[in-house]
Amino acid sequence: MIYLDNAATTRPDGSAFARAASFANECFYNPSARYGGGFSAAAALNEARGSLLSRIADAAKYELVFTSGGTESDNFAIFSAARRGNAVTTAGEHAAVERPFSELKNRGVEVRIAPVNRDGSADAAALLSLVDEKTALVSVMHVNNETGAVNDISAIARAVKAKNPRCVVHSDGVQAFGKLPFRMTNEIDLYSLSAHKIGGIKGVGALVKRRTLALSPLLCGGGQEGTLRSGTENLLGALDFAYAAEGVFASLSSRFERVRALQARLWGELDANLFTRISPENGSPYILTVAAAGTRGEVIQRMLWEMGVAVGTGSACSSKKPYSRVLEACGYGKELLGGVLRFSFSAKNTEEEIVEAARLANEAVREFQQKV
Amino acid sequence: MIYLDNAATTRPDGSAFARAASFANECFYNPSARYGGGFSAAAALNEARGSLLSRIADAAKYELVFTSGGTESDNFAIFSAARRGNAVTTAGEHAAVERPFSELKNRGVEVRIAPVNRDGSADAAALLSLVDEKTALVSVMHVNNETGAVNDISAIARAVKAKNPRCVVHSDGVQAFGKLPFRMTNEIDLYSLSAHKIGGIKGVGALVKRRTLALSPLLCGGGQEGTLRSGTENLLGALDFAYAAEGVFASLSSRFERVRALQARLWGELDANLFTRISPENGSPYILTVAAAGTRGEVIQRMLWEMGVAVGTGSACSSKKPYSRVLEACGYGKELLGGVLRFSFSAKNTEEEIVEAARLANEAVREFQQKV
Repeated sequence: MIYLDNAATTRPDGSAFARAASFANECFYNPSARYGGGFSAAAALNEARGSLLSRIADAAKYELVFTSGGTESDNFAIFSAARRGNAVTTAGEHAAVERPFSELKNRGVEVRIAPVNRDGSADAAALLSLVDEKTALVSVMHVNNETGAVNDISAIARAVKAKNPRCVVHSDGVQAFGKLPFRMTNEIDLYSLSAHKIGGIKGVGALVKRRTLALSPLLCGGGQEGTLRSGTENLLGALDFAYAAEGVFASLSSRFERVRALQARLWGELDANLFTRISPENGSPYILTVAAAGTRGEVIQRMLWEMGVAVGTGSACSSKKPYSRVLEACGYGKELLGGVLRFSFSAKNTEEEIVEAARLANEAVREFQQKV
Repeated sequence: MIYLDNAATTRPDGSAFARAASFANECFYNPSARYGGGFSAAAALNEARGSLLSRIADAAKYELVFTSGGTESDNFAIFSAARRGNAVTTAGEHAAVERPFSELKNRGVEVRIAPVNRDGSADAAALLSLVDEKTALVSVMHVNNETGAVNDISAIARAVKAKNPRCVVHSDGVQAFGKLPFRMTNEIDLYSLSAHKIGGIKGVGALVKRRTLALSPLLCGGGQEGTLRSGTENLLGALDFAYAAEGVFASLSSRFERVRALQARLWGELDANLFTRISPENGSPYILTVAAAGTRGEVIQRMLWEMGVAVGTGSACSSKKPYSRVLEACGYGKELLGGVLRFSFSAKNTEEEIVEAARLANEAVREFQQKV
């Protein structure tokens, strides 16, 4: 099995999992319990919290709230920060941002959506023009999950704050964390993370927040996570997330270079007569999205699975719509939209896998074309 | 270590965990991915869903939505069902119900709180008198987590529906599921479950819902769980939950009898001159809450931990308030409220452990009293 759908989810890091499971199954106490076992569990949780936060932000200015994943982090950020006035986002966002924004309309918040460029990146000037003194929230993803386009969220946040210093700036960092070198800059208030995109298990994520920003919880109850996120703490998930991050951050730049070479090799091996490149040249190397005009991506995807290759077709999370909402917003026509394939990498992929996947993708598309 | 804080969390079922981890780490694909690996993951998820649902409800009438735990299930049920008019609950609820109800006030929903009886059970007549044609939701816990009192939620639901058929009835079943013999009756619309209270891992739970009831999601995004709960599915957690439930339901009644004997033995061994019983005689045998007048529960709790016994003091989730809000509502004075200890059982506890725990609890209280 050649696994090239790492933007959908990653193969769990076995050693991180074993380490986390060994601790959490032994120190299984409720981290809120006020006796030794609970204190040990809480201490381990806070060590994981500190470790994860240190990867990305200054602990003097930011704090990290564990959640059940990227979707909860996005929902939490958006519903908590956008309570009046207007809220601004882009046409390139993941459904975990797009859907909550859609719901904001029902709550009396005006929603403004900035267009994206051809590569899926935000049209920053257009976005900025939508921000005014009544803008409560701006949410712009860091790396586009469908194209790999990278938004300069630090520059965007700075420009937004220059126009409206009280506006909260959020970014979905799910496809960036542990992949791109990045640290949160002053103007970014909120940043969403997910564990299972970097070798952690599913069902855990985090929202990194500026300490001075007041947020009302999305889940309320026992008051865990400093009252910001109630529910018995998922110690196994938090530890596993921290340990997986430890692994990826130890070799962030070498993995980045390796994956960049894999991405370039794949693009080089794909038949240029069959595939149109959708991913930008300067995007995240972890994603290469292409389209085979006139084909159907989901059919090619299944053919490739039968041949031993797992790839995506846009977002694995997207619903039953025929075409990707995001790629449609990029300006592609139906001819290409129907035939989208997303290859997404791990540093564990080998060059041999890449060459073989390209050969099979070329073969699958030719086969599809012959049948039609 | 004698672990008697099973209402806070349980020691993970090792064989359920090993089985779930073995599958989820191998079939690590995104359950929403539309190729073989994703289909296998989705099939396993749905098998776990069906297995769990079968323990408690008729699959023709009910469905099960996986969540990140009991708190999310409660929040989801309450915020989705109570959008106008009034909502009724009891003074005995867990914070995961009490806090969302408090938040409902900010959303223009009138909140009505029924008193509890001395044992923490709902005053059903008083509760019913609060229900009128504008009641959108009634939420009554099944087993009180602080006293073990059992509410006859089927009878309450029936009476509520007789008065207002459109009212949604929810129950937090976190301390009942896998412990008390129970199946959902027609008038109960929503029921919250948590995995880690029955040997599952933390970070997973479920909301069982009547199929014909329309709910709007709390977390929106990729549309997982039939659009009711977005976010990449936590396959490990769901499988582990189902396997842990398989274990407890295979011996529900023998475990019930065994724990009943343990509870009776503990109460028999505790010095009647030192302890006042708070738990009712006819409550869940899984909980025995007592109070040592004039002592401080959290001090006794720490002394017992040093002696090798883990017990609770009311809810592990509760915040920094000096006394339990729920036990205060039961009508206890400060003399007893300060000295509450909650022993909560697992069928794996032995009679020897119980006898030893009682001896040490008697000793700790006497020691405390001598020091004062």
